[in-house]
Amino acid sequence: MKKFILTLTGPDQLGLVSKISTFLAERKGFILEQAQFGDVATGRFFMRCVFECHEGLDTSAFAKAFDPLANRLSMEWHLFGSHEKPRTLLLVSKEAHCLNDLLHRVRHNAFPIHVSAIASNHDDLKGMAEWYGIPFHHLPVTLETKPEQEEQIAQLAENADLVVLARYMQILSPELTRLLYGKAINIHHSFLPSFKGAKPYHQAFERGVKLIGATAHFVSDELDEGPIIDQEVIRVDHAHSVQELVMLGKDIEAFVLARAIRHIAERRVFVNARKTVILK
Amino acid sequence: MKKFILTLTGPDQLGLVSKISTFLAERKGFILEQAQFGDVATGRFFMRCVFECHEGLDTSAFAKAFDPLANRLSMEWHLFGSHEKPRTLLLVSKEAHCLNDLLHRVRHNAFPIHVSAIASNHDDLKGMAEWYGIPFHHLPVTLETKPEQEEQIAQLAENADLVVLARYMQILSPELTRLLYGKAINIHHSFLPSFKGAKPYHQAFERGVKLIGATAHFVSDELDEGPIIDQEVIRVDHAHSVQELVMLGKDIEAFVLARAIRHIAERRVFVNARKTVILK
Amino acid sequence: MKKFILTLTGPDQLGLVSKISTFLAERKGFILEQAQFGDVATGRFFMRCVFECHEGLDTSAFAKAFDPLANRLSMEWHLFGSHEKPRTLLLVSKEAHCLNDLLHRVRHNAFPIHVSAIASNHDDLKGMAEWYGIPFHHLPVTLETKPEQEEQIAQLAENADLVVLARYMQILSPELTRLLYGKAINIHHSFLPSFKGAKPYHQAFERGVKLIGATAHFVSDELDEGPIIDQEVIRVDHAHSVQELVMLGKDIEAFVLARAIRHIAERRVFVNARKTVILK
Amino acid sequence: MKKFILTLTGPDQLGLVSKISTFLAERKGFILEQAQFGDVATGRFFMRCVFECHEGLDTSAFAKAFDPLANRLSMEWHLFGSHEKPRTLLLVSKEAHCLNDLLHRVRHNAFPIHVSAIASNHDDLKGMAEWYGIPFHHLPVTLETKPEQEEQIAQLAENADLVVLARYMQILSPELTRLLYGKAINIHHSFLPSFKGAKPYHQAFERGVKLIGATAHFVSDELDEGPIIDQEVIRVDHAHSVQELVMLGKDIEAFVLARAIRHIAERRVFVNARKTVILK
Repeated sequence: MKKFILTLTGPDQLGLVSKISTFLAERKGFILEQAQFGDVATGRFFMRCVFECHEGLDTSAFAKAFDPLANRLSMEWHLFGSHEKPRTLLLVSKEAHCLNDLLHRVRHNAFPIHVSAIASNHDDLKGMAEWYGIPFHHLPVTLETKPEQEEQIAQLAENADLVVLARYMQILSPELTRLLYGKAINIHHSFLPSFKGAKPYHQAFERGVKLIGATAHFVSDELDEGPIIDQEVIRVDHAHSVQELVMLGKDIEAFVLARAIRHIAERRVFVNARKTVILK
Repeated sequence: MKKFILTLTGPDQLGLVSKISTFLAERKGFILEQAQFGDVATGRFFMRCVFECHEGLDTSAFAKAFDPLANRLSMEWHLFGSHEKPRTLLLVSKEAHCLNDLLHRVRHNAFPIHVSAIASNHDDLKGMAEWYGIPFHHLPVTLETKPEQEEQIAQLAENADLVVLARYMQILSPELTRLLYGKAINIHHSFLPSFKGAKPYHQAFERGVKLIGATAHFVSDELDEGPIIDQEVIRVDHAHSVQELVMLGKDIEAFVLARAIRHIAERRVFVNARKTVILK
Repeated sequence: MKKFILTLTGPDQLGLVSKISTFLAERKGFILEQAQFGDVATGRFFMRCVFECHEGLDTSAFAKAFDPLANRLSMEWHLFGSHEKPRTLLLVSKEAHCLNDLLHRVRHNAFPIHVSAIASNHDDLKGMAEWYGIPFHHLPVTLETKPEQEEQIAQLAENADLVVLARYMQILSPELTRLLYGKAINIHHSFLPSFKGAKPYHQAFERGVKLIGATAHFVSDELDEGPIIDQEVIRVDHAHSVQELVMLGKDIEAFVLARAIRHIAERRVFVNARKTVILK
Repeated sequence: MKKFILTLTGPDQLGLVSKISTFLAERKGFILEQAQFGDVATGRFFMRCVFECHEGLDTSAFAKAFDPLANRLSMEWHLFGSHEKPRTLLLVSKEAHCLNDLLHRVRHNAFPIHVSAIASNHDDLKGMAEWYGIPFHHLPVTLETKPEQEEQIAQLAENADLVVLARYMQILSPELTRLLYGKAINIHHSFLPSFKGAKPYHQAFERGVKLIGATAHFVSDELDEGPIIDQEVIRVDHAHSVQELVMLGKDIEAFVLARAIRHIAERRVFVNARKTVILK
């Protein structure tokens, strides 16, 4: 392992880039990509740096040496091997398009996640999970069994770095959203903040919008209000029925969700209060 | 004048196209374009037909003959010469980009409207209006003078087929919106229904959306709730300030407004309850 | 079966719409959609009409009555049941993304084709075909066996209404392209006419374009020169490697190919000399 | 003046970011934006850094101190005040849309260039130049007078940092393109490399493409082959005439050209052999 991704967040201040890049240079870290953002509003600094050590890197020695520097700068940091894939738990219901898209990308297109498990409140997508060889957990849910069912999800999530609601049609409890905060993302089938909540394509149809959208966002305890990661739209017109909107929307739901996950897996995504920073 | 546009609206029913196109064929109307839409939800039929009469057309004889047919079918109809340009009243405030874009198109790009007058609550854009040789009416407004000022607008609108609020930053009174209903359009600087009302770019910035938009819509007595004619979006990211959103948004505001006006001028736009039908 | 699609092509002339729509009205055909195009350059007329007969329609009686009219007008015509799905032969090689996308749409998203068979010069995608329950024909090809292999393809194509080269990486012989003309489409992984032929993403990388594209087109005996059905692009930048272009391009290849096939299946696509007419 | 943009180009090597950012930190340069790119293919490194010195910066002292470091690293560098606007010479012919768009942006939208002069082989746009108060040079050209005319352009260009061919419909001589290399950009009205040379919209119409485009690129001595800065496309269909393509294309020509100029003015654009690097 010779390529690494270093991410940092903390209060913006003079000399940050100098200190960090000098630290890397001293360890023969050749910087391949570096991107950063200092937010004037929150005073926070965000950095992502991809570097290569031709002679390898002792990551625990790195950590030991970097920690005091990061502490002095009040920075949170993470070091990842560039091919380290986030273990990902996928939550689904009956809709297959996002699941199919993600599993196909993982198998065929070097998509940088490891799908550790799929959980669903229905068993419609069990066959697809099996064909791809991914453990499938059927966790049916009723109003009464919701606490137990969410407990099972929470346990599965413990072994995951990332939880993706890939058209999971249940609203998570406040407890679970808090537990998973910053770790769980959702694809909402509208261009948020328009058409929050249930049946967004019906809402879009009623309003007569000329573009429909999809939004990938972090799950928070306010429904469809979490920080937005990515959005996309597609043109529609007066002649499209609700069913056609639903069908057309699937393409951008899958596309936007995949792009958001890729950015997370490449360690480009940071939560910044109610918004995100995506370093490219 | 040999090319005409016929528009029709009424209850959908068997044999409409047959009756209308046969009427045209009998008058040697050669159909160049025809588009139509039957709305299952409202039961309304909309048609736009562009036809050519090589030997010309006696439009009053046409009207006399067509009226009884249209009455039997309960259709509203209009016949336009294809080069008949809607007389257009532009309402502006201080922002110049939409006005500049429209006046430039009219002078240089065969944009199919006739700008009969420009009215503004400020005089900042007087010079631009003068350079283009368009009458400019400075109609300042205060809370107290609003009824009189709107009376002046209403009088100017009487001589216009179309009223365009090209970043006019005043909210029209319910009386004026009702008077102008179906005749006045607005460009709102957000992707409606997101970010209605004041300072939509600030709202977009606070929410952290990844695309910002603009919406051209008919003016109605509910603010930013009129039927949507056209929308467009542009990609932004975490690094854009509100001021940059404002600047980037101007391009799509002008673009969407111009496209909406073109569609209206080409007689493609129909109001269908709370939505629009755009026949292409 | 009560909904039908009628398509017509022939020389443009006065009264066409009248004659056709009157014919339909006399059979109580209620027109749901109608679109048409008269090409000034070629003098050709194209029409697509979707109509409903509540009491059903005797299609052979329709044909018997309509043929003389069509002959007088020199029109070619076809009548389809609106749910009649083109039997489709898919040709693939090793790349899975278009095949996966199409098969998923057929199974889950009411995609309006019937995949009758899949043929490939490799057997990599056999498992996927089997999982979807579609007959898979492994037809390996060498320079010497090409005539026999193409003969097998031609036989499979005989039972198909549509042949889709879904990233089939063999150039068809002039004989086969002529045999399949108007019936076979290809997805080319560039924005044609840029980057014809082999390795278009490498060509795009070398030229430094800022958008890459995909093009669905009819197969003709001039490579990548057939009539274009649909195109789409996606933004790239200087930092993308060829491999990343390849990966990003897959999304639009699958998307454009699916949209082109949908339009063909909905009988919206007409060949007009070297171009296409797509009636929406 | 307290905000600065530093740009650097040179051979990629270990420790670059460390050395440069440390140099800035020692002068209390607070980094606001930093972007970089190391090109594996050419081995070149590109950097753009925006920094702020609250106590101001002695730029000649900076130069004196930075030069030896840059020399050791074999880097070319430039330091700009962040509000330093490139003096820009606009070359136009008869088409007004790009000129109108640029002049409007400069006057109303804080567009970061200073238009020092406008030159044209026609005098159609003289009135517009005068209204905006920009010196206008009418430089008619014939085959015989071309050398003298280009000599006049060369002289005007001497006082400019940037030369923009804003729909200037003359082909520059190889001598002039070489003289202006890296300093002159053009807007070509097609999606290059498709439809080079004359009448690209006619070519696009003949080929039946479904998207038309515009390309901003550096002028080089091979026509329409210079490094591409930006591109954009817009959807068209079979019903658009060449004249409509021309009209629709104007919007994206003006839009793409303005975006390319903005990126140059913000010092984001680097030539990298036959391609560009755009640091955002």
